[in-house]
Amino acid sequence: MQIAICLYGFGNVGREFVRLLNRKAPYLKSRHGLEPRVVSIVTRKGGIRAESGIDCPVLVNLANAGTLSDQEGFVGGDPSDLDAWLPPMREGDVRVLVDATWSDLDTGEPALSRLKDAARRGCHLVTLNKAPLVADFDGMAQVARESGVCLKFSGAAAAGLPAIDTVRVSLAGAQVDSIEGVLNSTTNYILTAMSDDGLSYEEALRRSRAMGLAETQPERDVSGIDTACKILILANAAMGARKRLGDVKVTGITEVTSREIAYWAVQGRTLRLIGRAVRTADDVSIEVKPTPVPYKDFLAQVTGDSKGVRFTTDVFGELTIVGGSGGPSAAASSALKDLINLAKAVGGEQGHIS
Amino acid sequence: MQIAICLYGFGNVGREFVRLLNRKAPYLKSRHGLEPRVVSIVTRKGGIRAESGIDCPVLVNLANAGTLSDQEGFVGGDPSDLDAWLPPMREGDVRVLVDATWSDLDTGEPALSRLKDAARRGCHLVTLNKAPLVADFDGMAQVARESGVCLKFSGAAAAGLPAIDTVRVSLAGAQVDSIEGVLNSTTNYILTAMSDDGLSYEEALRRSRAMGLAETQPERDVSGIDTACKILILANAAMGARKRLGDVKVTGITEVTSREIAYWAVQGRTLRLIGRAVRTADDVSIEVKPTPVPYKDFLAQVTGDSKGVRFTTDVFGELTIVGGSGGPSAAASSALKDLINLAKAVGGEQGHIS
Repeated sequence: MQIAICLYGFGNVGREFVRLLNRKAPYLKSRHGLEPRVVSIVTRKGGIRAESGIDCPVLVNLANAGTLSDQEGFVGGDPSDLDAWLPPMREGDVRVLVDATWSDLDTGEPALSRLKDAARRGCHLVTLNKAPLVADFDGMAQVARESGVCLKFSGAAAAGLPAIDTVRVSLAGAQVDSIEGVLNSTTNYILTAMSDDGLSYEEALRRSRAMGLAETQPERDVSGIDTACKILILANAAMGARKRLGDVKVTGITEVTSREIAYWAVQGRTLRLIGRAVRTADDVSIEVKPTPVPYKDFLAQVTGDSKGVRFTTDVFGELTIVGGSGGPSAAASSALKDLINLAKAVGGEQGHIS
Repeated sequence: MQIAICLYGFGNVGREFVRLLNRKAPYLKSRHGLEPRVVSIVTRKGGIRAESGIDCPVLVNLANAGTLSDQEGFVGGDPSDLDAWLPPMREGDVRVLVDATWSDLDTGEPALSRLKDAARRGCHLVTLNKAPLVADFDGMAQVARESGVCLKFSGAAAAGLPAIDTVRVSLAGAQVDSIEGVLNSTTNYILTAMSDDGLSYEEALRRSRAMGLAETQPERDVSGIDTACKILILANAAMGARKRLGDVKVTGITEVTSREIAYWAVQGRTLRLIGRAVRTADDVSIEVKPTPVPYKDFLAQVTGDSKGVRFTTDVFGELTIVGGSGGPSAAASSALKDLINLAKAVGGEQGHIS
């Protein structure tokens, strides 16, 4: 299957995705019969394109080079002008827009409009960008459904931790009654350092920055907003919650004290920033807050930059998954996974064994 | 989508599957657009059939009644005579054979020949029976592939724990370098009771029997053979291992002593019966043996009738899943899940959101 890819965003994740595509090309061909080619890479002020696909050596050079706009072949243009950047319709091609940009969490823009527009043009979507899903999950899902395209976003909520796949496939047929998870690495690192090494909040935050863990905007992490976005996406996708960010009750970790941690330690508990969505009689309630978790609980064991999530279901009981070490590699691998599963879905996978 | 089901085996799992189908019917229709009907139920000496589907109330009555052959409508016949039992080809029907029988682990028979035969007739396969997969995984996969039918078996290796789904979907694009897991409830219960309650092996085995945990043939559990079957299926399916049961080095728990457990406890470790498959330079080695696991390891935390498995991969790092409380309900739910995912694959799911 020929896959024509339009890649939006060329930061660490976009670059890693291109490297991965290149490195896995023989495997994708032999194992999955897939021949992806990157037709365009688009950043804020324009991009690089080649209808027959940007040559592999060129792609890898681009991934390892500086700012895209300084590279040979870059042409200026409005990234929202899809006529300019989307792969043209071609017999036998499956067209996919991969979004590795950042957008505003309140509006989802500029990605939201662009993704919907691409879907209406019959282009499948893989988004690593959580903002459009946070801002308008139902709208995105509806446009994708009406347009008959796939919308894949396993890298948008706790990249690398296969939370969405698990619900859709592994728990197919079950009703998800609750989801709770440790979904943000920075806050988990800080709480662990406060607990294990006796650091104050400020010291632990400083250390997480020194280690390059805290993102450029650590406020999103420590305020609990990042966790809120992730549990919101999971609840909307897996529990049909139809909630918005404003519906999530959010308490971050900025007020957590060493004394509080010591208090819980005596009770055999450790403090974790937990995002939790629970089905009630006729609704779903979503909350993020520092929560004392018994040491023996799996979520207490989630350390380093791993993440963990536990589902409670009607027919499968509890299922816990832990993994998804963060970083650009996990996110890029999630996008590749989405591409493979999307191709299977589009191709109407016959004779498959699993 | 109309799904015509031929169910082989009507023990606890088969009965639970029928109940579940009935209970989930409205959900299957509204959420997945699926209308499954059970066309035949086959046991050792014959079965019950109705081309238009056995009526729901009748089905539920059968599930709650005694031996099938004593029920109204039972007709004698050879279960291997597929002409008699498979749903007839009908425009728009997807035909599925669900196997909930037991077979011989060495030969896979009588299920193996029957399943292959059904595949060649264009019937999709869902097997909860691990024997045909243990005896001839490659043969089963090849026949399914050549016949263009799906072969689903998520309930055949650690039912309820979505190990196979995880590899196929959540880890798509990744190379699995190792799989290690706690895959058998009985042995895990015995080792936990020896460790936590200071019981001897014999006392712990007796207690597991009293609790109804140990199966009718506890030898398969305590000898490690059940774990060997499961890790073998996982290694063949997820790592392309192409191994047979004889290739698995198996040590059970019958020789484990209280003294050994106490020795490891002092070292901060607990004994678990671990099935492990590891990719080597040009092969995969598979082993089952009691293994001291650090208390902080996720696999040490797998208790009760849960199971746990950890995958190590090239691009996603480690991923651990814990869950899948055993019993007929988990196995039946796995078969239902397979049915849903099979229908999606056959239908060429378009416009799907995940």
